[in-house]
Amino acid sequence: MNMHEIRVGLLGLGTIGVGVARILLENNDILRARLQTELRLVRACDLDIETDRGLDLRDVELTTDVDRIIKADDVDIVIELIGGYEPARSFVAAAIEHGKHVVTANKALIARHGEALFALAEERGVVLAFEAAVGGGIPCLKALREGLAANRIESVYGILNGTCNYILTKMEHESLPFDVVLKQAQALGYAEADPTFDIEGVDTAHKLAILAAMAFGTHIRFDEVHTEGISRITPDDIALAGDLGYRIKLLGIAKPHGDRIEMRVHPTLLPRTSQLAQVSDSYNAVQISGDFVEHTMYFGRGAGERPTASAVVADVLDIARAMPDGTAHLAPPMAFPQAARRDLATLPMVDIECEYYLRLMVKDQPGVLAAVADILGHHRISLEAVMQKERHATQSVPLVLLTHCTREGNLQAAVSRIVELPSVEDEPLILRMERGA
Amino acid sequence: MNMHEIRVGLLGLGTIGVGVARILLENNDILRARLQTELRLVRACDLDIETDRGLDLRDVELTTDVDRIIKADDVDIVIELIGGYEPARSFVAAAIEHGKHVVTANKALIARHGEALFALAEERGVVLAFEAAVGGGIPCLKALREGLAANRIESVYGILNGTCNYILTKMEHESLPFDVVLKQAQALGYAEADPTFDIEGVDTAHKLAILAAMAFGTHIRFDEVHTEGISRITPDDIALAGDLGYRIKLLGIAKPHGDRIEMRVHPTLLPRTSQLAQVSDSYNAVQISGDFVEHTMYFGRGAGERPTASAVVADVLDIARAMPDGTAHLAPPMAFPQAARRDLATLPMVDIECEYYLRLMVKDQPGVLAAVADILGHHRISLEAVMQKERHATQSVPLVLLTHCTREGNLQAAVSRIVELPSVEDEPLILRMERGA
Repeated sequence: MNMHEIRVGLLGLGTIGVGVARILLENNDILRARLQTELRLVRACDLDIETDRGLDLRDVELTTDVDRIIKADDVDIVIELIGGYEPARSFVAAAIEHGKHVVTANKALIARHGEALFALAEERGVVLAFEAAVGGGIPCLKALREGLAANRIESVYGILNGTCNYILTKMEHESLPFDVVLKQAQALGYAEADPTFDIEGVDTAHKLAILAAMAFGTHIRFDEVHTEGISRITPDDIALAGDLGYRIKLLGIAKPHGDRIEMRVHPTLLPRTSQLAQVSDSYNAVQISGDFVEHTMYFGRGAGERPTASAVVADVLDIARAMPDGTAHLAPPMAFPQAARRDLATLPMVDIECEYYLRLMVKDQPGVLAAVADILGHHRISLEAVMQKERHATQSVPLVLLTHCTREGNLQAAVSRIVELPSVEDEPLILRMERGA
Repeated sequence: MNMHEIRVGLLGLGTIGVGVARILLENNDILRARLQTELRLVRACDLDIETDRGLDLRDVELTTDVDRIIKADDVDIVIELIGGYEPARSFVAAAIEHGKHVVTANKALIARHGEALFALAEERGVVLAFEAAVGGGIPCLKALREGLAANRIESVYGILNGTCNYILTKMEHESLPFDVVLKQAQALGYAEADPTFDIEGVDTAHKLAILAAMAFGTHIRFDEVHTEGISRITPDDIALAGDLGYRIKLLGIAKPHGDRIEMRVHPTLLPRTSQLAQVSDSYNAVQISGDFVEHTMYFGRGAGERPTASAVVADVLDIARAMPDGTAHLAPPMAFPQAARRDLATLPMVDIECEYYLRLMVKDQPGVLAAVADILGHHRISLEAVMQKERHATQSVPLVLLTHCTREGNLQAAVSRIVELPSVEDEPLILRMERGA
């Protein structure tokens, strides 16, 4: 082994894996200049090592044997880009057990198994890094972990899923229904064949759970993130929200409340003039606010071969730079040392407070609004605006109400009575608003 | 000395100094949790140690003797918040000579004397950190230095001066002339009594010189930044640009051209829908693009007691975390190790290429446009749009021309002939456009 060389092994030669290999090969001069050390991709493992990936891999050993990476004496840093829970979890755990530093882009893995893996990494004195898991190429975790470390974090808002943001942007610009835009997105490769994780908010929830735990020094509680997707949003909702001065985004939201943490993912009305509302197409952005820094925002590509690879290799460089002295002085992976991280409860959804957009489909008859308003009043919910766009004698029409700030429990109780009104048809759509974002 | 304690000395108890002291005192619990070490403000130096700053400084020794900070055995990290070139430079150099790590928010110091100070710090094995010098609270230098380190940087655009951005935003929203808005800004404390450094672009040029050198691995060449301010912009220009789909921002721009670097600060027309054009009031933002990450943007408060202090203390934490093992493994202050930094020439302004907004004040006579267009044609400059807003028989009127992309040298040559036309009055205003931002 050359002492001035750091050796990297790659698990998975899919889209991101190819991007990482490409940086390590094409930007080798830049990396060497920054590091004053050679960063060498020694080996890559994939089930398919036959397909030509358009890369000059002459100096890289290709293997189908994962042990040639995770147990190899000549690999210092393992990059896991397989994705999903298994076998990624087993491979990462084994690599850590064998004293390898690990870099991953796998948000599902960190959200679900991060706690066990961080504990294992600490025990073995190695680093588990995951910048690419949240916000793709945007170095938002480094900003939160290090750049804002002087602050008590007050809120985190994220547009964290490019597929959803692309669909909502298209629905707005072209007044098309969700299903049609989803099919277009699938045809263009912006959405997966099975888009459930994206459109139902699960991917955003993975990322939000990681951000929240890092922001507030708590354990990751992915299962407790309240998660709603965007499939029930209609072009009418987008247009009505627009008329009222808002844009709808799938937002991940995390805030501390004393010894409880609020974590929720759902379509959210944002003031059209806010920075986050300007984030369009497949771009991602994270807004982080702290008690001293006030509002900050980080914007860029949240996915894709090249941007994601950029974040992966940034982690590799951090580790490589630290390796000569050991990595104990790197910022802790979750921003707080394991011993200082707390186990705080999640605020139940009924206890959150915000303003609401309530869209009902009603028969256009006299007295409907009075009946709805009466129920809301009984639950101490006051209205900021009411809007009914068109009138049809025979069809049901959308009736939109914007509430002042109220407790979710009150709103849910009111809605459960509103749906029983004979003039109210279909299930109401409840969207939450955020003015601070 | 307590081994689990890192001792900080503060030079300057002005606005930012008070902010830093406040974080160290008020967020001490958060800092201790993150660091697992006590971070203690042991001493602060200022010419005025009598004024009550609304802080509980009982455990902090106040002194007017700077040597009690920069030469003291019981100080590990010196924070310089005096500002300006001298005596800040001498104090920082002396602190480094005495083996102290130094954190500063002083962009003028780094822009002008950074190279000498970095060399000295490397020689003495200490860190000179300056996150707060660019973008205030926004951790944009860390993003560029570490988060995007896998990239070949392709461009840096920055709205880096809150005073200018506040003035331009106000001029747009209220159609008021520059002088009036400047006076309002001074009354509100958003502009200094002598606002020259801000409004003439010098402050932005300081910051751009630092960003460019960090982005491209070159030496800082502040004196070579082409610098224009905002004092010649009129509400008419802002309105005319708006009609054409643009917003005017004071932008710092840096791009590499082979072995030369383009660096310029001037009012710039940005497409209204771009992310940077949305940055209003006193907010700052930096857009950094790399060959893998594509576009990223960092947004937040670029000045002020609390945001700037947030960045200063983040640097302190980086150093404090590293100290037990020595700080050699921290990312180099200018992103590339001293030995790898190059000395590249600055691209002369005549060689830059962009689109231009050219506003002439002309007598409203037949043939003016033909004469102007003829001169532009002779210099191979083609037009994208022409606009003349109002007509006056007696007064001169603004004539606005948008050019296609052309070489600055050609445009300057054409303008030097245009001003000689008898129907052209006053000095023309030349603004540059950027579509990539």
